[in-house]
Amino acid sequence: MIETLPYLLQPYNICHFEGSTFYIGNRKTFPKEKGFVECQNCQQIANALKLMITQGGGPLQVALTAFRYIASEMDNNNIPFSYTHLENEIDYIVRARVTNTTMKRTVDSVLSQIKPRFIDPTFNTTDLIIELNSVIDKIEKDYDEIYYKMGILGASLLRDNDTILTTCFAEHTFLLSIYLAKESGKQISVLVNETRPYFQGTRLTAPSLNELSIDVKIISDSMGSFYMGKNMIQHYMSAADLVCMDGTVVNKIGTNQNAICAKYYNIPYTAFAISPDSTKKTFNDIQMEYRNPNELLMINDNYIGDPKINALYPAFDIVKSELVTNIVTNKGVFKPNQIRGVFE
Amino acid sequence: MIETLPYLLQPYNICHFEGSTFYIGNRKTFPKEKGFVECQNCQQIANALKLMITQGGGPLQVALTAFRYIASEMDNNNIPFSYTHLENEIDYIVRARVTNTTMKRTVDSVLSQIKPRFIDPTFNTTDLIIELNSVIDKIEKDYDEIYYKMGILGASLLRDNDTILTTCFAEHTFLLSIYLAKESGKQISVLVNETRPYFQGTRLTAPSLNELSIDVKIISDSMGSFYMGKNMIQHYMSAADLVCMDGTVVNKIGTNQNAICAKYYNIPYTAFAISPDSTKKTFNDIQMEYRNPNELLMINDNYIGDPKINALYPAFDIVKSELVTNIVTNKGVFKPNQIRGVFE
Repeated sequence: MIETLPYLLQPYNICHFEGSTFYIGNRKTFPKEKGFVECQNCQQIANALKLMITQGGGPLQVALTAFRYIASEMDNNNIPFSYTHLENEIDYIVRARVTNTTMKRTVDSVLSQIKPRFIDPTFNTTDLIIELNSVIDKIEKDYDEIYYKMGILGASLLRDNDTILTTCFAEHTFLLSIYLAKESGKQISVLVNETRPYFQGTRLTAPSLNELSIDVKIISDSMGSFYMGKNMIQHYMSAADLVCMDGTVVNKIGTNQNAICAKYYNIPYTAFAISPDSTKKTFNDIQMEYRNPNELLMINDNYIGDPKINALYPAFDIVKSELVTNIVTNKGVFKPNQIRGVFE
Repeated sequence: MIETLPYLLQPYNICHFEGSTFYIGNRKTFPKEKGFVECQNCQQIANALKLMITQGGGPLQVALTAFRYIASEMDNNNIPFSYTHLENEIDYIVRARVTNTTMKRTVDSVLSQIKPRFIDPTFNTTDLIIELNSVIDKIEKDYDEIYYKMGILGASLLRDNDTILTTCFAEHTFLLSIYLAKESGKQISVLVNETRPYFQGTRLTAPSLNELSIDVKIISDSMGSFYMGKNMIQHYMSAADLVCMDGTVVNKIGTNQNAICAKYYNIPYTAFAISPDSTKKTFNDIQMEYRNPNELLMINDNYIGDPKINALYPAFDIVKSELVTNIVTNKGVFKPNQIRGVFE
């Protein structure tokens, strides 16, 4: 395992709780401030997710930690542990971000594992809390192993002297791939799209790569094809918020245009997907999140242009399978047309 | 002719001079402020161009007005009018922006027209100044006619209910095309890339279209392909800072990726080129401008991310001729492979 994850991926920095306060690492002010947003209940946690205080893989970790938090809260307040309460509270969090379904599917898995214990008369509240924490422990350990395995798989796709283009913040799997490739002696450089409107590339990915001593430079979201055309990019890599059974990749807006340009310049595009979603048969099943256009029109609460003019802000791109070279998953590296056979 | 050009394209608002002060309309603070940067000599004017106080077609108008200004300055200060002085002063301005060669070629044309008068003993200083202003008058009138003609040609390419994607600020020719299409009864909508890092789309293009009562919405530079994929864009249009004889189009960074995506989605890409450059045979002859990476890393003088991490900032994209559907010029609408035959 990687000894020192960059600051943003250390579990405590993603989220934790003390007493009745739930702390979410504030990715919107990073790296200027390494602060936390404080929440007092699951509705406030859900609101923080809607505001993108944490994003990408962050909400999954928040949901897992929220299970422990809900249990702890009931224990501290001597409230009898109720399955309905647990389900209702975690549902606030699940509904905060709709396109990435990994969180929802993981939450459903936790609920289905713990539900039978609630009707088991031999389990009292203390037992239920221990059991819930044990389920979460196991899932967190599994994810750590998945991240590491996918990092090894991703690193295997990289060659010495490759320069990688990436968009947004592709978290553990991408960062581990770059780190493990470097550790194995490969010289890897990364160009990072700044990723408007939140600048996750500039604020999250570039500093995290820098922490891992990787050569990194920032470009605007409009410059990828310039460097592809100059043969200065050998691989485009991104996370995947969702992969459908037809090999469609859903990821941060901006991914599709880079994937199209990569295909035009014969550069491979690799997406990292923790878990393709077997309930999403094709791209028609994707629930698309549109965000407040003001997020595009304002910087630091000031309008960039004329406040009378509106904007559009789809949060995610839908990348057709024909544009995808590799999908790195927990079960191996696959071509898009292999996904259905492996995951359905 | 169009009765009311939008604010940014009115000649007085691009630049003018009073006495020894040369005023350049400050596009960097528009639309918040409709201000001017004041310059006291041609070196200061050149510096303002390097700082992108005006850009796109602005520097051409600045150079033409600077000829009048240099002459006026010498007249006011009773300095004998010298060709060498004129050439040296205007050269500061020409060298401020190197990729768009229309300004340089227009300046060279003025110089070659006026030079013979300096060795004509019948011309005194007053005559020379009158002659210079007359040459500039003619060129400005020619450009106005070219802009209008290209506007008619551009409008002819648009269909009722088209939504156009555009990048940066494509000035007279594009805005007139949209305006004239609308005047002829076509319903036209425009999606404008915000155009990082200076937000020319958000700040210049969107308000100018809005002034002309065109339906306009802003998207980030990463969203064009999303709406192409949804069949919500029927045409991609941009200016061209330079067109080579092989049909290569040079324009603001971000143009290439949209042109590639337009080709992928079978959407036409039209570039407006006031004057293809017969001295540039192929894309190998292009002099590329790289700008200060801090322009990408900072907003309002504050670093967005970690100041230790660097960026790259090529100012222009080079779009291969195979990606270009139409080039609208002063001589008509051509396919890229027709440019050499018409302009060389």
